[in-house]
Amino acid sequence: MLEIFWGAGSPFAWRVMLAAELKRIPYESRLLEFSKGDHKKPEFLALNPRGKVPVIRDGDFVLAESIAILAYLERKHPDPPLLGRTAEDTGRTWSAIADFESYMRDQTTPLNRWLFGDKPRTPEIDEARAQVGRELDRVEARLADHEWLVGNAVSAADVVWFPTLRTYVRAGARNEARAREVNLFPFAEVYPHLARWIARIEAQPGYDRTFPPHWR
Amino acid sequence: MLEIFWGAGSPFAWRVMLAAELKRIPYESRLLEFSKGDHKKPEFLALNPRGKVPVIRDGDFVLAESIAILAYLERKHPDPPLLGRTAEDTGRTWSAIADFESYMRDQTTPLNRWLFGDKPRTPEIDEARAQVGRELDRVEARLADHEWLVGNAVSAADVVWFPTLRTYVRAGARNEARAREVNLFPFAEVYPHLARWIARIEAQPGYDRTFPPHWR
Repeated sequence: MLEIFWGAGSPFAWRVMLAAELKRIPYESRLLEFSKGDHKKPEFLALNPRGKVPVIRDGDFVLAESIAILAYLERKHPDPPLLGRTAEDTGRTWSAIADFESYMRDQTTPLNRWLFGDKPRTPEIDEARAQVGRELDRVEARLADHEWLVGNAVSAADVVWFPTLRTYVRAGARNEARAREVNLFPFAEVYPHLARWIARIEAQPGYDRTFPPHWR
Repeated sequence: MLEIFWGAGSPFAWRVMLAAELKRIPYESRLLEFSKGDHKKPEFLALNPRGKVPVIRDGDFVLAESIAILAYLERKHPDPPLLGRTAEDTGRTWSAIADFESYMRDQTTPLNRWLFGDKPRTPEIDEARAQVGRELDRVEARLADHEWLVGNAVSAADVVWFPTLRTYVRAGARNEARAREVNLFPFAEVYPHLARWIARIEAQPGYDRTFPPHWR
């Protein structure tokens, strides 16, 4: 059976959990505890020398990197498709994924570190928030008249974007003052369409099993 | 017919040109001149508001982002496959692509700016070179006993990695002193297996049509 190695709070691992649930693929959850250093232990480094989640093991086949795992699962379990039913939808889905990977990903790290930490705000944080804001505005506009980021059904694009966006909602619950300071709180007032899209994903079957345990 | 909008020296656009040639897809080349600001002109911004290459237009269908275009071309023109014949090869190919996108891409920008510029070396450059070096060592080891980055045939992984690696070779020809200073010259002595892999790609049919015109 497919094994998924993940860790609570890793947005990259969360993508794989979501994809497995959306595709209704049976899997065994292998939850690593970062606080115990599970990801730096020899048995995990044997699977991924980088010591990063997610990793999957499917029989003898081991694979790291969230987006590679999404592509593998799509090929192995094509229905329901998460990477497009047509060439055009496949292109659009990967383009929305690339939007995250190229223009959001590197900004989320310093912003999250600040949102959940106690360091002072710096110009780097403001620049990250501005860049994230430009991307969120695009996505918010898309969702004003669409239910999903690409096409008419949930796709890998939603799966790739969701964990980071859900983390911004959590930031408001954990440190309201900081989230408010950078206009991420109240999230549903700043980004009403994104908030409804988040609720749509949270309503998907199996979502609860993907939710980071230590967030409860 | 497929149109490819590219620009000389854009490693991302080069990927798409290589994929089109390897798949023997007929296309019309739309070469933008960055020096004339072609990528900021309204007619191009109408295709991609970010003003970045590559972009393709295939009939009415317009798509940006190199990796999305590779996925679209694979779906539209499956043979020869560049993204794997099996689920496992698909996963491995995307994993090698993710290695570049996650661990190389952001380091190449400051390193290239220094290699082709006249600014002094900074700790940021040394850190970028060290990080690039860790990734190149992994790839060099792989190529010691394999012809291609994944599997037994040229794939999208080779296409994604090649332009940046070829740029390092060019750095040695353009500014030998700088390239030597950061151990990227003589490239074939530092990375003999990578150098042979570069030659294998350069020997592919149609390669010459993808070569950046202003590099000649």
